[in-house]
Amino acid sequence: MPELRKDPVLGRWVIISTERSRRPSDFRRPAHQPVTGHNQPCPFCPGNEHLTPPEIMRRPESGQWSVRVVPNRFPALTPEGQPVRQGVGVYDKMTGIGAHEVIIETPDHCLSLADVEPGHFSEVIWTFHDRHVALSADPRLRYVLVFKNHGAGAGASLAHSHSQLIAMPVVPVLVKSELEGAAQYFRFRNRCVYCDMLKQELQETVRLVFENDSFVVFQPFAPRFPFETWVVSRRHLGSFATMDAAHVTDLALALKDILGRMNRGLSGPDFNFVVHSAPLTEPDPEYYHFHIELMPKLTTIAGFEVGTGFYINPVPPEDAACFLRQQSG
Amino acid sequence: MPELRKDPVLGRWVIISTERSRRPSDFRRPAHQPVTGHNQPCPFCPGNEHLTPPEIMRRPESGQWSVRVVPNRFPALTPEGQPVRQGVGVYDKMTGIGAHEVIIETPDHCLSLADVEPGHFSEVIWTFHDRHVALSADPRLRYVLVFKNHGAGAGASLAHSHSQLIAMPVVPVLVKSELEGAAQYFRFRNRCVYCDMLKQELQETVRLVFENDSFVVFQPFAPRFPFETWVVSRRHLGSFATMDAAHVTDLALALKDILGRMNRGLSGPDFNFVVHSAPLTEPDPEYYHFHIELMPKLTTIAGFEVGTGFYINPVPPEDAACFLRQQSG
Repeated sequence: MPELRKDPVLGRWVIISTERSRRPSDFRRPAHQPVTGHNQPCPFCPGNEHLTPPEIMRRPESGQWSVRVVPNRFPALTPEGQPVRQGVGVYDKMTGIGAHEVIIETPDHCLSLADVEPGHFSEVIWTFHDRHVALSADPRLRYVLVFKNHGAGAGASLAHSHSQLIAMPVVPVLVKSELEGAAQYFRFRNRCVYCDMLKQELQETVRLVFENDSFVVFQPFAPRFPFETWVVSRRHLGSFATMDAAHVTDLALALKDILGRMNRGLSGPDFNFVVHSAPLTEPDPEYYHFHIELMPKLTTIAGFEVGTGFYINPVPPEDAACFLRQQSG
Repeated sequence: MPELRKDPVLGRWVIISTERSRRPSDFRRPAHQPVTGHNQPCPFCPGNEHLTPPEIMRRPESGQWSVRVVPNRFPALTPEGQPVRQGVGVYDKMTGIGAHEVIIETPDHCLSLADVEPGHFSEVIWTFHDRHVALSADPRLRYVLVFKNHGAGAGASLAHSHSQLIAMPVVPVLVKSELEGAAQYFRFRNRCVYCDMLKQELQETVRLVFENDSFVVFQPFAPRFPFETWVVSRRHLGSFATMDAAHVTDLALALKDILGRMNRGLSGPDFNFVVHSAPLTEPDPEYYHFHIELMPKLTTIAGFEVGTGFYINPVPPEDAACFLRQQSG
């Protein structure tokens, strides 16, 4: 059973995974997990459905699936049991309950998310949405994290396009810090900090990349990484789960647009995105604003950056935005 | 002039670097900075001193140097000017003043830090110490960060063994969180959380790797990465700068020991270490405890981990400690 452990100083929970466990001697050589080659059948391709754990859902429900959700074969957290919280001297730990699912975004092994049709992209987002809503009903859980690792450099271990979802009994430390920072801003100003940011970005325009009726895509003022991009809902929405149909369609168009720009301008980089949504315990706070952070993997993240939270970014976001605005399809 | 910019939600400062600036189109291919090969003269080798910016210090002061400090050729922060703080709507920024120095740890191009003699290792630590003390006198600065990137995978761009120092007018966000977490613990218990942790580690022993009179080396209870290792002063010391001679000698022995164990057990991995010391504005707090965090680079850091602060670690620290205890020299 995996275990959640808390750093007693930072309040940061980590998962000590057992399903993914490796013996110390496995690390004798730097381990770069290879992206599955052609010599192994791809477990995400149609016809190989038996190679995944039993399916959680598919869209559409009958006929050939276009999106499919299965449990992660090496889950970071597992669904059985209760969250047993325990102190060990100065430390805290908890049983690693939760869910770890894989969203197979397309039956086509060679298609990347940027290249699926807009209607299909909406299906993928509806799938995120449906799983978010379904897992929200579980009282043991506090947070649903939807994210995507694209390419080996960004941590993907399979080439077939997919994203992931981890549902957990704690709130990730950076989201917790966002919630605290946003709540503090709201207490002082009675306004959502993200709504204020959005207003300023739409006025200044120098960091804008794309906008439609529901979403604005821009480079943040203080980005950690070159071409770090945020996709922010124009209307104040606390949670991913409260999107309506027009929102989902527009989010698909916005994400497809920015991924296309990155592919054209940056030669198809590896990337990650993370959906930042309100915790399940407070699904629609007036001070927090649902958004997506997208990070192409263009530079080596030095340990000192991870070790301090202090990042050096060689590309001003205004330059990055200007460049991405030029990469229209 | 580089610029410091603050994320309005997290309070996280990033450096938007101009000296290291790259045009957006430079990122068309994934940029892996190559480690200098044999076709270029190494700027850190004796005889090539003219290839570095003017020297800041050397030890010993005359004759052949054993350790040398020079400004970084592409500094993240620069020493000229005053810290001008400015608001831009919802955002905050500051002129990027500070210092960015390189500590060349040995004249020998082929020697790694783990393999220098103990006396020489102490010289390296005295050099960190001397630069820390010298920069502490600058009233514009708030924090001195000493760190090492070893190997291309850990962000090093030159093979010749070196570490770095960045002195800055703000406190890095993760250190700020540590200070806040440790202060909160102290307010409640009137004890240093690190001292309590150390006491528990010495009692439980399962995560211990090495100890001497002044330092204890252990795997933390909630490590983000496999084989993440902390080197903690046995006596309560807030700052790196307050070490005495016995401390420096013992720190050199402790670091040399753990780097040797990692080299033997993990085939010479790339690694980073970061010195966590008290800020210059409060150099010896009773609630904060100087320590070093050492992270071998054995796994790909996925963007979702960076994007959430939520880490999945496949190796329990008890297993890692047991393995490292067996790797004695």
